[in-house]
Amino acid sequence: MKILECVPNISEGRDPVKIASIAEEVRKHPGVKLLDVSSDKDHNRSVFTFLGEPPEVQEAALSFAMKAIELIDMQSHRGGHPRMGAVDVVPFVPVQGVEMKEAVEVARRFGKELGKRGVYVYFYEEAATSPGRRELPHIRKGEYEGLREKLMGPEWRPDEGPHAFNPKSGAMVVGARFPLVAYNVNLKTKDFALAKEIARKVRFKDGGFPNVRAMGVNLEDKGLVQVSMNLTNCQVTGIPAVYEFIKEEAGKRRVEVEESEVIGLIPLTVLEGIVRHYVKCHRFSIRQVIEQRILESE
Amino acid sequence: MKILECVPNISEGRDPVKIASIAEEVRKHPGVKLLDVSSDKDHNRSVFTFLGEPPEVQEAALSFAMKAIELIDMQSHRGGHPRMGAVDVVPFVPVQGVEMKEAVEVARRFGKELGKRGVYVYFYEEAATSPGRRELPHIRKGEYEGLREKLMGPEWRPDEGPHAFNPKSGAMVVGARFPLVAYNVNLKTKDFALAKEIARKVRFKDGGFPNVRAMGVNLEDKGLVQVSMNLTNCQVTGIPAVYEFIKEEAGKRRVEVEESEVIGLIPLTVLEGIVRHYVKCHRFSIRQVIEQRILESE
Repeated sequence: MKILECVPNISEGRDPVKIASIAEEVRKHPGVKLLDVSSDKDHNRSVFTFLGEPPEVQEAALSFAMKAIELIDMQSHRGGHPRMGAVDVVPFVPVQGVEMKEAVEVARRFGKELGKRGVYVYFYEEAATSPGRRELPHIRKGEYEGLREKLMGPEWRPDEGPHAFNPKSGAMVVGARFPLVAYNVNLKTKDFALAKEIARKVRFKDGGFPNVRAMGVNLEDKGLVQVSMNLTNCQVTGIPAVYEFIKEEAGKRRVEVEESEVIGLIPLTVLEGIVRHYVKCHRFSIRQVIEQRILESE
Repeated sequence: MKILECVPNISEGRDPVKIASIAEEVRKHPGVKLLDVSSDKDHNRSVFTFLGEPPEVQEAALSFAMKAIELIDMQSHRGGHPRMGAVDVVPFVPVQGVEMKEAVEVARRFGKELGKRGVYVYFYEEAATSPGRRELPHIRKGEYEGLREKLMGPEWRPDEGPHAFNPKSGAMVVGARFPLVAYNVNLKTKDFALAKEIARKVRFKDGGFPNVRAMGVNLEDKGLVQVSMNLTNCQVTGIPAVYEFIKEEAGKRRVEVEESEVIGLIPLTVLEGIVRHYVKCHRFSIRQVIEQRILESE
């Protein structure tokens, strides 16, 4: 069984009719399941989550993007979230039974199709065509408003599509990435400096664990502090590694862990890692989970 | 979403044609998934695993049992496993979103239907009609061969069906139980007495954890010993409780845990318990697992 996920972000979070008709394009594909649509009025942005076998997901993403491009006009878009285009970011995420290589191929084919239809496209993360284009914030610098000028230089020639400014749709960033796990550990202390210090130690940028982004957060209402993380590849650094590290670091200051929390959805394989680690169940497999077998038998 | 599992054991493990046509009866029910069929020639016995919404599972179990009763004649049955009838045991197991009460109701209705069709039935475990009939080994004592005599006494009057010996089909034991987790912890020692001692301490029968059966096993090939367990209700005693206890007991003798193993299939909720325990993720829910959401969206 193969599950590829697509989590596109579009620059429309206020008009429910438009959002519904864009979602409808995904629902037209019977092999694809639309799990979630989250719209934010302040950001004027919506995030869709759908998944299925790779070819079906690619097809659904294409209908989805074309409808969004038809309905969204960036010339009148206002919102609090950084953005560069009508269909702003389209990541493809291997959830189960899909190699990253295949997710990259889907992203590249999807981008090529959109290029043919006059949209221009940058590839990012695992689908990036050069190291300088891996990071989304870097590509998106200057946002929609700076795009016309950005496109005049050779450095920001799009990976696909015409090399000209498209005022209605802006640019689209398409890529492939590992499932992202939003994971927080709350500490039984009001010492915000400690949370920031531990966040610094745990994150890769400052010499910590690979594929970990982290920051300290002050949870004043709860009288706690938090190490808030994104685990960008749980096969490399999973929940047990960061939890145990934070527990130990806090313990040195006689601070206990209050609780930890997983935000949003995670693939079953993340739980496989936890079981293998904590009870030394080295051979445990998600294929031993009844619910997984039901999915496979369909 | 509701998932009820049915794991019937029949007294036929040698004739693949018969086994296939009994399995076919389950497959005729589109809402029910047949996950597994395991046949043992020495035991001359097969175990089927199928699941779905409770009413569909009840219907599938009925067609299944009627076909097995048609094809199996206990008068010529020989096999190594204790058994009392053609359809020997039919447990209904709540896997997800089903209360035990509902599983008991399904078992009772299923038993009543079979009673009407001339099969006689004992209810066991959570579906038992009296405390003396809770335990399968107790009901099955004397096996098929002792059944004629057993039925002559008032004590073993069946819960459903005619009160007379049916030589072709024998008796059927129908019930409801929690998912059973077969879980072993292997210890880095050849001290078999230690495994037996820890098994004694961990099992309920000798004052240990509720809903735990355990025995010591000598894994001579591997040069290890094992505490082999059945966890009969993981909501009461889960994997973390027994793993940590065994690790600590072994540690007192300076013996380490080599690894642990889950045998066969487990419900996703068992993993929920592990995540909540080890990383204090108290609010973690199986609804945060992508694969679970896919199932729910069907």
